[in-house]
Amino acid sequence: MEIVCRNTHFVLSGMDISQIINKYHVGKMRDNVLELNPCECIYLYMKGKIMPEPEMGLPQVISSVFTEDLYIYYVYSILKEKGLIVKRDGNKFFYKKTGGEYGIPVILIKEGDLIDFSSLYVDLPAIFITVDEEKSITYFRADFIDPEGNADSDISIGNPEKLNNIYYTTNSHPEWFGQEFMGVKILNQFEANYISGELKTDEDKLYRDLIKRHFIVKSGFKYGQNFRIYSDSMENHAEFLVSLMTSEKWYKISRAIRLSTSVRKKTLIAGFIGNDLKYIYIERLRDI
Amino acid sequence: MEIVCRNTHFVLSGMDISQIINKYHVGKMRDNVLELNPCECIYLYMKGKIMPEPEMGLPQVISSVFTEDLYIYYVYSILKEKGLIVKRDGNKFFYKKTGGEYGIPVILIKEGDLIDFSSLYVDLPAIFITVDEEKSITYFRADFIDPEGNADSDISIGNPEKLNNIYYTTNSHPEWFGQEFMGVKILNQFEANYISGELKTDEDKLYRDLIKRHFIVKSGFKYGQNFRIYSDSMENHAEFLVSLMTSEKWYKISRAIRLSTSVRKKTLIAGFIGNDLKYIYIERLRDI
Repeated sequence: MEIVCRNTHFVLSGMDISQIINKYHVGKMRDNVLELNPCECIYLYMKGKIMPEPEMGLPQVISSVFTEDLYIYYVYSILKEKGLIVKRDGNKFFYKKTGGEYGIPVILIKEGDLIDFSSLYVDLPAIFITVDEEKSITYFRADFIDPEGNADSDISIGNPEKLNNIYYTTNSHPEWFGQEFMGVKILNQFEANYISGELKTDEDKLYRDLIKRHFIVKSGFKYGQNFRIYSDSMENHAEFLVSLMTSEKWYKISRAIRLSTSVRKKTLIAGFIGNDLKYIYIERLRDI
Repeated sequence: MEIVCRNTHFVLSGMDISQIINKYHVGKMRDNVLELNPCECIYLYMKGKIMPEPEMGLPQVISSVFTEDLYIYYVYSILKEKGLIVKRDGNKFFYKKTGGEYGIPVILIKEGDLIDFSSLYVDLPAIFITVDEEKSITYFRADFIDPEGNADSDISIGNPEKLNNIYYTTNSHPEWFGQEFMGVKILNQFEANYISGELKTDEDKLYRDLIKRHFIVKSGFKYGQNFRIYSDSMENHAEFLVSLMTSEKWYKISRAIRLSTSVRKKTLIAGFIGNDLKYIYIERLRDI
């Protein structure tokens, strides 16, 4: 029985070939040769189930069969250690239990990777996995969401006036719109731009879109995000923290989600696909 | 007695002029006229101590005397409400207690402001104040720091080898450098670039600088930062989280500091002033 990976030959050590196939679900049999892909090969080698022939050390084995990022192998081995059957396509992994179905992909993102919204969006739903240098693992599950609130966001203001750079009104509906200040309502920049119809920034467009989706929209500064939104009334805690994303290092996205989680709020990431605002719901998972 | 602010005239209401000056430390007497600056004027008006003449409403008063961002006034009033004597220069405020000395400035930064490292650096030491739309206040104190550790960071590795894109060594000093993997030490990208002397990114330069400052330098991903550093040994908790900053929206910086605080670590912000790496120590204050 021959075992081959990228022209490097291996021999069995301990188990016979059918035990390996039944236990690890790896390789392809072809003309009485078990062909392993690089992840499978390193995994079995690390487990002591196969040995290279002629004999060589780990660095030589890795060098012979593995030309990619070592984190690819880490993720593979993490999934295999859970007893799963694992298929891989680049940095995407699909897994299932014996007799089960493949589910959403597990996608490796590295901490310093620069991610743009659309590249995150096209892969949904997905679980994003990051392994730091000490092999400590962080999982995020992300999916499409089309958020809808049912707050009163039918905004009308009477006699809006602008004095210097301050927009105010003496009469606004609903209650939550504007900030009471000595008998008048002062509008913040997003509210003022909404009323004037001058959507100067993408954040202004996000603000308008959230209003249109019937949310109460307030500043998210204290939580390091653009907005916090309430789907019903401000008497309940804010349901989501929302931030606009264009392109961002992955560790900063991770930071935002971690902080949301620590204050028990859900995280929405908003972004533009062409001219359309889209939303991603993302949460940290303890495990998969 | 005349009271004037920007050609708008006011009359006293309740207190006499010496009571106002003694209690609030505002205005400049000139030729029997008390000249108020716009913040002082709005403040006394809001307190009901002066009334415009001829009579007008709040919006008209604001319009007559205040041409700046209303948050400037909020900050002024916050400091005045603490019983402090307040001087202002643009978005910078200096305060003292009666008989005391002016200290470091309190600087207004708005949540959406785009801040670059050098503009933060030139103002140090300072307290940065942010007021959100509900007038909830966040203070950060920031100062220069020249961080020095005393860990063993005299790195030497024997026989460094590169296989494909994996850098490894069979023999490295100190212990914490590299990640043990089946009898060899695998180097991460920063470690590998450090050894090879190829400093490809500013993060590589930051890594090298922290090593030179005798810190143990490890990934900060789990905390949403570039690095976590230990000044002595990894048996103690990481002392600082360090991130490189070029230009960033203020709410994202706030997010980083909040997250560091929640895991009881100190935050260092690193950045380049010309070719020199400089560090800022920044922490959240409950109050000032």
